[in-house]
Amino acid sequence: MIRADPLPAATRYRAVVAYDGTRFQGFQRQAGETLTVQAVLEAAIERVTGQRVTLKAAGRTDTGVHATGQVIAFDVVWRHTPADLWRALNANLPDDVAVHSLAEAPPDFHPRYDARSRVYEYTLYVAPARHPLLDRYAWHVPVSQALNNQMMQRAADLLLGTHDFAAFGQPTQGESTVRQVFCSQVQTLPAPPPVTQLLRYRIEANGFLYHMVRRIVGALVRVGSGALSLEELTRALEGAQGDWPNQAAPARGLCLIAVTYE
Amino acid sequence: MIRADPLPAATRYRAVVAYDGTRFQGFQRQAGETLTVQAVLEAAIERVTGQRVTLKAAGRTDTGVHATGQVIAFDVVWRHTPADLWRALNANLPDDVAVHSLAEAPPDFHPRYDARSRVYEYTLYVAPARHPLLDRYAWHVPVSQALNNQMMQRAADLLLGTHDFAAFGQPTQGESTVRQVFCSQVQTLPAPPPVTQLLRYRIEANGFLYHMVRRIVGALVRVGSGALSLEELTRALEGAQGDWPNQAAPARGLCLIAVTYE
Repeated sequence: MIRADPLPAATRYRAVVAYDGTRFQGFQRQAGETLTVQAVLEAAIERVTGQRVTLKAAGRTDTGVHATGQVIAFDVVWRHTPADLWRALNANLPDDVAVHSLAEAPPDFHPRYDARSRVYEYTLYVAPARHPLLDRYAWHVPVSQALNNQMMQRAADLLLGTHDFAAFGQPTQGESTVRQVFCSQVQTLPAPPPVTQLLRYRIEANGFLYHMVRRIVGALVRVGSGALSLEELTRALEGAQGDWPNQAAPARGLCLIAVTYE
Repeated sequence: MIRADPLPAATRYRAVVAYDGTRFQGFQRQAGETLTVQAVLEAAIERVTGQRVTLKAAGRTDTGVHATGQVIAFDVVWRHTPADLWRALNANLPDDVAVHSLAEAPPDFHPRYDARSRVYEYTLYVAPARHPLLDRYAWHVPVSQALNNQMMQRAADLLLGTHDFAAFGQPTQGESTVRQVFCSQVQTLPAPPPVTQLLRYRIEANGFLYHMVRRIVGALVRVGSGALSLEELTRALEGAQGDWPNQAAPARGLCLIAVTYE
């Protein structure tokens, strides 16, 4: 009689992933030959474990958006330590994607549904000309004078709390456009000459509508340049969309910084 | 009798140039199809002015080295303002090269021979894995523990003043390997998690040997990890080369920050 080893059970792993989004068509795997972060990660997992998986992620970042704190989960059979899996994955990923950390997770852990909040940062700079060493991860704002960052912070303050953000984007799932914002902060960073101003906007919320952060940044910059008043912003937050110019800031300045869990 | 306008005289212009060196085979134009920063700048000048020039530069940065303060000079006939020339050049340059400023210069201005000093910065980080958003402009140092940055600063202090740097590289021109170092400083920057340590080394000198900054950084990192003693570094500075391990740090972390003039 042949005694077979019982089929080993798969373990759920949770990992924090960072990527430079420049050359990717967003995070989420698509049909065909499209280059996505998810496809690159799943290919590395398959090379290392021999198992084809479909991973889950906390946020589906758009084309050109970066991340330092994306959270993913996947199930594989792995006979070595999590540290071995982490090392093997990094050795099989391209230079612009890395696994920052990796650990075992409860079998029902879901990076999107279990998330309490997401933190995004958006970096922008005002300068007489493009700055080649900032440009990959920041938006060169086309204004000739420094933005009024105090007005921008006052505008950012208006977003705090629970609001209907319908004027700032469509829901990615479900119907509700109400979101709760926990943090909304405009930081001034040291600007390398000849850059006039280097700003970073940080926002933490329980969820985001499609293009929401980029549309908020577009509005903040218009407040900072005097093209939009705090009253107009307040009206937009109260649901009056009208001729509200809902211009999204470019993807290059946006980075998913962290996802928090209970 | 035909009265021709006198042939207009060319004016010398001086410009501060920034570039992301990643895709270039260094600054200096080479024979053939090689992609260099100089060739890209000269092509933009020709497109804008219709004149083919050979520009002069303060420093010939190597393949993969970046700059935010490279200084160039060139002679063209230009009937509009320097601001117009600056705008036109930026409109004709690729995203990874920009002219930060441009002004008329005396006809005998030479960016290399007239320079009093050059300032370079080298950025490096210690982290358990590659950080995709730092990696383009910094060296991921392959050590498991944080470097001793106080020992590194003590080593950096040893370089101050006039020394024979023969152990740190060959001269790019002439015979002398003696250089005068005005500033040599190890800064600790805020490290984004999971990065253990983010360091920037700044050095200003009257001139640099070939690969000198990268070899100094290689030595500083070995001091910081305990692999090289201050005594060995002192001996290397006194001319004892022997089995001195002259490992250069990678190009990606290096940036030409400024060139100073009297």
